[in-house]
Amino acid sequence: MSQIQQRIEASFHAQSLMATLGARLISVLDGEVQIELPFSETLLQQQGYLHAGVITSIVDNACGYAALTKMPAGDEVVTAEFKTNFVRPALGERFVATGKVETAGRMLTVCRGEVVAFTGETSKVIALMQATMVNVKV
Amino acid sequence: MSQIQQRIEASFHAQSLMATLGARLISVLDGEVQIELPFSETLLQQQGYLHAGVITSIVDNACGYAALTKMPAGDEVVTAEFKTNFVRPALGERFVATGKVETAGRMLTVCRGEVVAFTGETSKVIALMQATMVNVKV
Amino acid sequence: MSQIQQRIEASFHAQSLMATLGARLISVLDGEVQIELPFSETLLQQQGYLHAGVITSIVDNACGYAALTKMPAGDEVVTAEFKTNFVRPALGERFVATGKVETAGRMLTVCRGEVVAFTGETSKVIALMQATMVNVKV
Amino acid sequence: MSQIQQRIEASFHAQSLMATLGARLISVLDGEVQIELPFSETLLQQQGYLHAGVITSIVDNACGYAALTKMPAGDEVVTAEFKTNFVRPALGERFVATGKVETAGRMLTVCRGEVVAFTGETSKVIALMQATMVNVKV
Repeated sequence: MSQIQQRIEASFHAQSLMATLGARLISVLDGEVQIELPFSETLLQQQGYLHAGVITSIVDNACGYAALTKMPAGDEVVTAEFKTNFVRPALGERFVATGKVETAGRMLTVCRGEVVAFTGETSKVIALMQATMVNVKV
Repeated sequence: MSQIQQRIEASFHAQSLMATLGARLISVLDGEVQIELPFSETLLQQQGYLHAGVITSIVDNACGYAALTKMPAGDEVVTAEFKTNFVRPALGERFVATGKVETAGRMLTVCRGEVVAFTGETSKVIALMQATMVNVKV
Repeated sequence: MSQIQQRIEASFHAQSLMATLGARLISVLDGEVQIELPFSETLLQQQGYLHAGVITSIVDNACGYAALTKMPAGDEVVTAEFKTNFVRPALGERFVATGKVETAGRMLTVCRGEVVAFTGETSKVIALMQATMVNVKV
Repeated sequence: MSQIQQRIEASFHAQSLMATLGARLISVLDGEVQIELPFSETLLQQQGYLHAGVITSIVDNACGYAALTKMPAGDEVVTAEFKTNFVRPALGERFVATGKVETAGRMLTVCRGEVVAFTGETSKVIALMQATMVNVKV
């Protein structure tokens, strides 16, 4: 495991929300990160779908850590803003959020993310994100 | 309590995520809804701030229920998309999300939301949302 | 006219697009700027409404210059991103875009804007923007 | 030329703004549309780059017409909202906006767009859009 993978793994485990949601970091590549979340009865909105805020939490993290893979060692990432479209009901056995870096600047990194719901053999995109991450010197 | 207040109260309590987060519905007015969340050690990102996804969850709900107050009785609200700017670190004893309807159409309702962090006597805006809600006939 | 008003006036006139559109800078206050555009047959989309890109051009400028009023003298403003909702058809005799600073940071300034269409005595909000401006040292 | 290509061609030419900007419709495929714009001294912001509103105008159109290729014959497309990130200075000899449909619903179509600047043999992405289009029955 590379240094950046170790660092993102440690950062992910330092996020208490990820444990609360039951999310797992499943892939860290250069400029692309994936996070998986099983369906849970404790994370729903009123119609029984996964809540938009939960979907947003995992794809925000996927985008943020994807951005971090492109930043200088020691820098920290903070979300400046994101926009998410919810394109299908969030129903499935598990959900995988993928974040990818589109452009990495000295100060701002722009990412795109998507969340796919898996049920048995079928999969469907349920959400699309476009996000701006800030590179913070610490 | 009016019919729409009762309906939003019931819908809010049907959202398992709100119980998981510890959020409370504190105000339902015509076109404006407020939700409160105490700080919790289980909802944080890696720097110890409230996670962006948690902030988003409560302000999305505040916007969605604000939209619902303007819809015909019996209709349901679904989030089409939102955009959130995170303008200060999410630190505080408690957080209040306010969602307001800007324009209500037959099919789409546009809302703006903000989240304010309170610590003792001080308060600061930490996030701003602009959202599109869909009016779903059920 | 203050130094910042003069500077914004000069910058506005250096934008060839504003002359092409026929836009006028009508107000520069601390943290709030207004730009006016008369309806024009040369700026329309296929249904005869003002094009979304034209509406966006004037409210982006209103937000950008509002941000500039909060930046240190000599700094330049660049748009990092914006999100615009189009809430009514862009019909009217003239359009006024207002941009307001919500929070001004050292690096990023978050603004909200709106565009109002005027026809005789009536006025209607037609668009809402939320934007992130970058403070560039020059 | 197919019926949808003819219809989009006609709609594009009915947009007076496209003639004012000097934009050309260069490709209409199922779910993907491209629009080209040469650099012009009349479309600039204060630093001599193409104005963000101009970039937005062409990528909004590319996304809107891409959405239209997926709608029932006779329907009309209207932009509900879009979000655009400006990732590099808009400098180049010509600019190509591409809009692609991500998901097409009965009522809403979600698209992603990008704008690439070309100078001689080099090309660079300068802007990324995520947009929500409404399917209007006429």
